[in-house]
Amino acid sequence: MADIAMQLAVERLLARYVASIDEDRLEEWPGYFTEACRYQIISRENHERGLPIGVFYADSRGMLHDRVAALREANIYEAQRYRHIVSTVLIDSVANGIASVRSNYLVLRTMQDGTLNVFSTGRYLDCVDLSGTEPLFREKVVVFDNKRIDTLLAIPL
Amino acid sequence: MADIAMQLAVERLLARYVASIDEDRLEEWPGYFTEACRYQIISRENHERGLPIGVFYADSRGMLHDRVAALREANIYEAQRYRHIVSTVLIDSVANGIASVRSNYLVLRTMQDGTLNVFSTGRYLDCVDLSGTEPLFREKVVVFDNKRIDTLLAIPL
Amino acid sequence: MADIAMQLAVERLLARYVASIDEDRLEEWPGYFTEACRYQIISRENHERGLPIGVFYADSRGMLHDRVAALREANIYEAQRYRHIVSTVLIDSVANGIASVRSNYLVLRTMQDGTLNVFSTGRYLDCVDLSGTEPLFREKVVVFDNKRIDTLLAIPL
Repeated sequence: MADIAMQLAVERLLARYVASIDEDRLEEWPGYFTEACRYQIISRENHERGLPIGVFYADSRGMLHDRVAALREANIYEAQRYRHIVSTVLIDSVANGIASVRSNYLVLRTMQDGTLNVFSTGRYLDCVDLSGTEPLFREKVVVFDNKRIDTLLAIPL
Repeated sequence: MADIAMQLAVERLLARYVASIDEDRLEEWPGYFTEACRYQIISRENHERGLPIGVFYADSRGMLHDRVAALREANIYEAQRYRHIVSTVLIDSVANGIASVRSNYLVLRTMQDGTLNVFSTGRYLDCVDLSGTEPLFREKVVVFDNKRIDTLLAIPL
Repeated sequence: MADIAMQLAVERLLARYVASIDEDRLEEWPGYFTEACRYQIISRENHERGLPIGVFYADSRGMLHDRVAALREANIYEAQRYRHIVSTVLIDSVANGIASVRSNYLVLRTMQDGTLNVFSTGRYLDCVDLSGTEPLFREKVVVFDNKRIDTLLAIPL
């Protein structure tokens, strides 16, 4: 794939991923990953120290589907809604049809009472599989800046 | 228009639209719309319920010019300034020279005393007319996340 | 350079610039500028009035290296970390291999105790030299919205 087409294909994947979450179409979320995959939410501190301890981990699309089911059961979207901003999408390298991509994210959260606040900032460290008809995440590591994050029942980042 | 050229043309329209607002060149703002157009600011709640009740509505470029005149009379730029961030610009479909485009926005506001805060987040739901020399908004629906928004004398979003 | 390739090359420069700062690889920062350059941080107020009084000024890559050394000595990264969002990158004109580029930025800051807040918004007014193998900033003027900004020992914006 030519550089320009690849850049826009990756940005489009990120845009669709984010739209599914923000627009409460969470059932679409696992579909942005390959069948075998890695999805992890981890603090910058632990990530920089090489500690593998994150606040969420999944290694298959099935686990992501389970997560969605749990969130639906908890009616989480009644209580809060996210709005993602993704910026500075940087393809570092491409090998064997997999692109290594870094980007900055910001998530704002609106609570049920209407209050709006900054929820999380950080980086997406993605491995994007470009071999199929649509690009898919083979790996998505969400490295958040703030020390602690309450994601027990949180919407995916 | 090829996909890549169209994506960048739409992103450029959004960038110019935003720059005119943020840089206090509001007189340029109506020029980003077609003569007959739709510009609406509406809460997510009302939009999702299909209620057509927004906080602002205009259906012609002339009405947008009137809005600018009212804002100038109120000297609104003395009291506050906006900064827009636009992200994840997604062209959903193109038909008859009109592109349906969704994007996420974030607006930060600096008040006269220098304080800075998050003012609004939400989505732009745009219909962009690509048939002329420059792309123009035929429709722009601003769906904001927070329940209430004071836009009586607010700068356009 | 064709329009599309140029747009993406400029966005990539901004993305790499931002990543070096946010990921604490500050030693790379001066390398994004030409040897003779202009880097300035100035308030919108002073910029609009044509007052040349900013909070930081450098006119060579060497001065930027000195700044990095001072920041390292002060251990500034222990105390705070930035996250940049860059949006609406707009190439206004190109002449003699130099592109005039405007973009909106937002910087969020995470303090050592884990608190996260909006630190600064504003515009990048850049002159990008496209004549070499990699685009470089010949000029970068950071115009911030909030009236005052404490940058005595701050990380570059």
